Amino acid sequence: MTVTDSPFLKACRREPVPHTPVWFMRQAGRSLPEYRKAREGIAMLDSCTRPELVTEITLQPVRRHGVDAAILFSDIVVPLKAIGVDLDIKPGVGPVIAEPIRTRADLARLRPLDPADVSYVAEAVRGTVAELGDVPLIGFAGAPFTLASYLVEGGPSRNHEHTKAMMYGAPELWAELVDRLAGIAAAFLSVQIESGVSAVQLFDSWAGALAPADYRRAVLPASAKVFSAVAHHGVPRIHFGVGTGELLGLLGEAGADVVGVDWRVPLDEAARRVGPGKALQGNLDPAVLFAPTAAVQEQADEVLAAARDLPGHVFNLGHGVLPDTDPDALTRLVAHVHERTAG
Amino acid sequence: MTVTDSPFLKACRREPVPHTPVWFMRQAGRSLPEYRKAREGIAMLDSCTRPELVTEITLQPVRRHGVDAAILFSDIVVPLKAIGVDLDIKPGVGPVIAEPIRTRADLARLRPLDPADVSYVAEAVRGTVAELGDVPLIGFAGAPFTLASYLVEGGPSRNHEHTKAMMYGAPELWAELVDRLAGIAAAFLSVQIESGVSAVQLFDSWAGALAPADYRRAVLPASAKVFSAVAHHGVPRIHFGVGTGELLGLLGEAGADVVGVDWRVPLDEAARRVGPGKALQGNLDPAVLFAPTAAVQEQADEVLAAARDLPGHVFNLGHGVLPDTDPDALTRLVAHVHERTAG
Repeated sequence: MTVTDSPFLKACRREPVPHTPVWFMRQAGRSLPEYRKAREGIAMLDSCTRPELVTEITLQPVRRHGVDAAILFSDIVVPLKAIGVDLDIKPGVGPVIAEPIRTRADLARLRPLDPADVSYVAEAVRGTVAELGDVPLIGFAGAPFTLASYLVEGGPSRNHEHTKAMMYGAPELWAELVDRLAGIAAAFLSVQIESGVSAVQLFDSWAGALAPADYRRAVLPASAKVFSAVAHHGVPRIHFGVGTGELLGLLGEAGADVVGVDWRVPLDEAARRVGPGKALQGNLDPAVLFAPTAAVQEQADEVLAAARDLPGHVFNLGHGVLPDTDPDALTRLVAHVHERTAG
Repeated sequence: MTVTDSPFLKACRREPVPHTPVWFMRQAGRSLPEYRKAREGIAMLDSCTRPELVTEITLQPVRRHGVDAAILFSDIVVPLKAIGVDLDIKPGVGPVIAEPIRTRADLARLRPLDPADVSYVAEAVRGTVAELGDVPLIGFAGAPFTLASYLVEGGPSRNHEHTKAMMYGAPELWAELVDRLAGIAAAFLSVQIESGVSAVQLFDSWAGALAPADYRRAVLPASAKVFSAVAHHGVPRIHFGVGTGELLGLLGEAGADVVGVDWRVPLDEAARRVGPGKALQGNLDPAVLFAPTAAVQEQADEVLAAARDLPGHVFNLGHGVLPDTDPDALTRLVAHVHERTAG
């Protein structure tokens, strides 16, 4: 087997697979004891700049769970930090921006990303790909809306008040903000692709806070710019946001080859919303992993049943692995999906 | 005009209205300076037990904004506290339960609610109704799933891990838990109706965390029990949860006369999902109120346009008023909706 023939990439291309491929959002980090050990005493954003550490953390879930793809250990704010935005990731909080972006003058702080700004990411990708052998590596970036929300709010936000105030009240400023962020996200993905990742995922973590009309008008053009900028590389492009049931068609329309689905919409219904010509990724509720094994398997089987007629299905959770998840439950789940779908 | 002929109750009954009625979830409390003044030095749960204070806080938004309905100032955990569950509402956090409910033995702590346990609520309703004149008063309760989540998690939870672990892993225990909570919610609503409220709303704040199949199997029967227990009173029953786009049909099916819709689903699409014979309530994004007035009005007009062909529409936000909302923006919004729909 080569990377190109791996079940994960075949499923992304909607080709027949020997078994349904599995990976988990947030599989690298969080719930693994070997991750906490590797990170000991190293701040999150520092760890992203150390290629050997990134490789080690990226490989950990592949070794432990036997997942069908690795995802680079990094963070969506890495390229913002790299262009000089004063930010930090606070444990238990998330990214915190020293000076929020609220005015046209503030935009000057968002210069384009130069590949040299993130040379450590390129190095980490090259080193990780070399170690992974025939297991594909997924690169990623934050989508313009989600990055904008962090920058405008100054940190994680439940309601995105300031972001929406700008989006509704200063539409031209907003459009320029997300356009700049699209350029940064595209450049960040290109660095990863040129260094060897086999697929990319655009995380629009907060897009589910938007009504479809607003997403279409104020967000989709910027996300489409990201996807179109990396289209010529020919690697599968995955698009995901939690709580985006109403937006699934638009997430595909933005240019994705694979649409990620959270657990609120069954995959057969998701396929109807996304339309033909796309693979789907998902969608077991991550909270299900706190139930006994038999219940986890029953719920996983329901996901597989709903995915039966899809042309391409990548099994994943409907959102990231929750921090207190038992790693053994993930390992058992990978084996279960492989076994159920083999042949 | 009498209360019965009020625009709010007419809209709930899908009768013609002189103008679209407006009220706001969380209109009492939070954003109003006169509320913060009235509450000064009084803990949240204590304030709910003082009838005169409850009346004052309930009336404040009616006086200030000219809304078409009042909602009783209270909290969904009041009946749990009243039957002796050791809990408190921590400012900036929410309800915190001293000993979470996780086992069959724990269920013993959930005895049925006796009207005498909440006599202060009955007194508050009577006093408030007397003051309100022809403005209807809405009573409310927390739905079984949402109450269960607080009890099982021990407080507010983003992911409801323990709740779902019980739901999937111990379905009989779960069914008994939500059944007991249904009895408590129904009794709490009955006390309010018998004391004079003109409508009731069941808040299933966290139901949006559930996939439709799980909601139908593990939650809907309990919520349906609440609605059916109060049906004979003949007051309109409203059902709402945020992020419930996938569940709108089921929220109606549970027995509601009016289904509340958050801002992610346009009201015309929501009407298709809910089906005939129900009124809708909603659904302006509460974050829009942080934008300039012209943008707020434009978004409100879009809500009204989507509601044009509905047989019954109660204008509301798609979720509660956000704490930092400018009260004047709410007052202007009420006037705008009244003016746009008058005639």
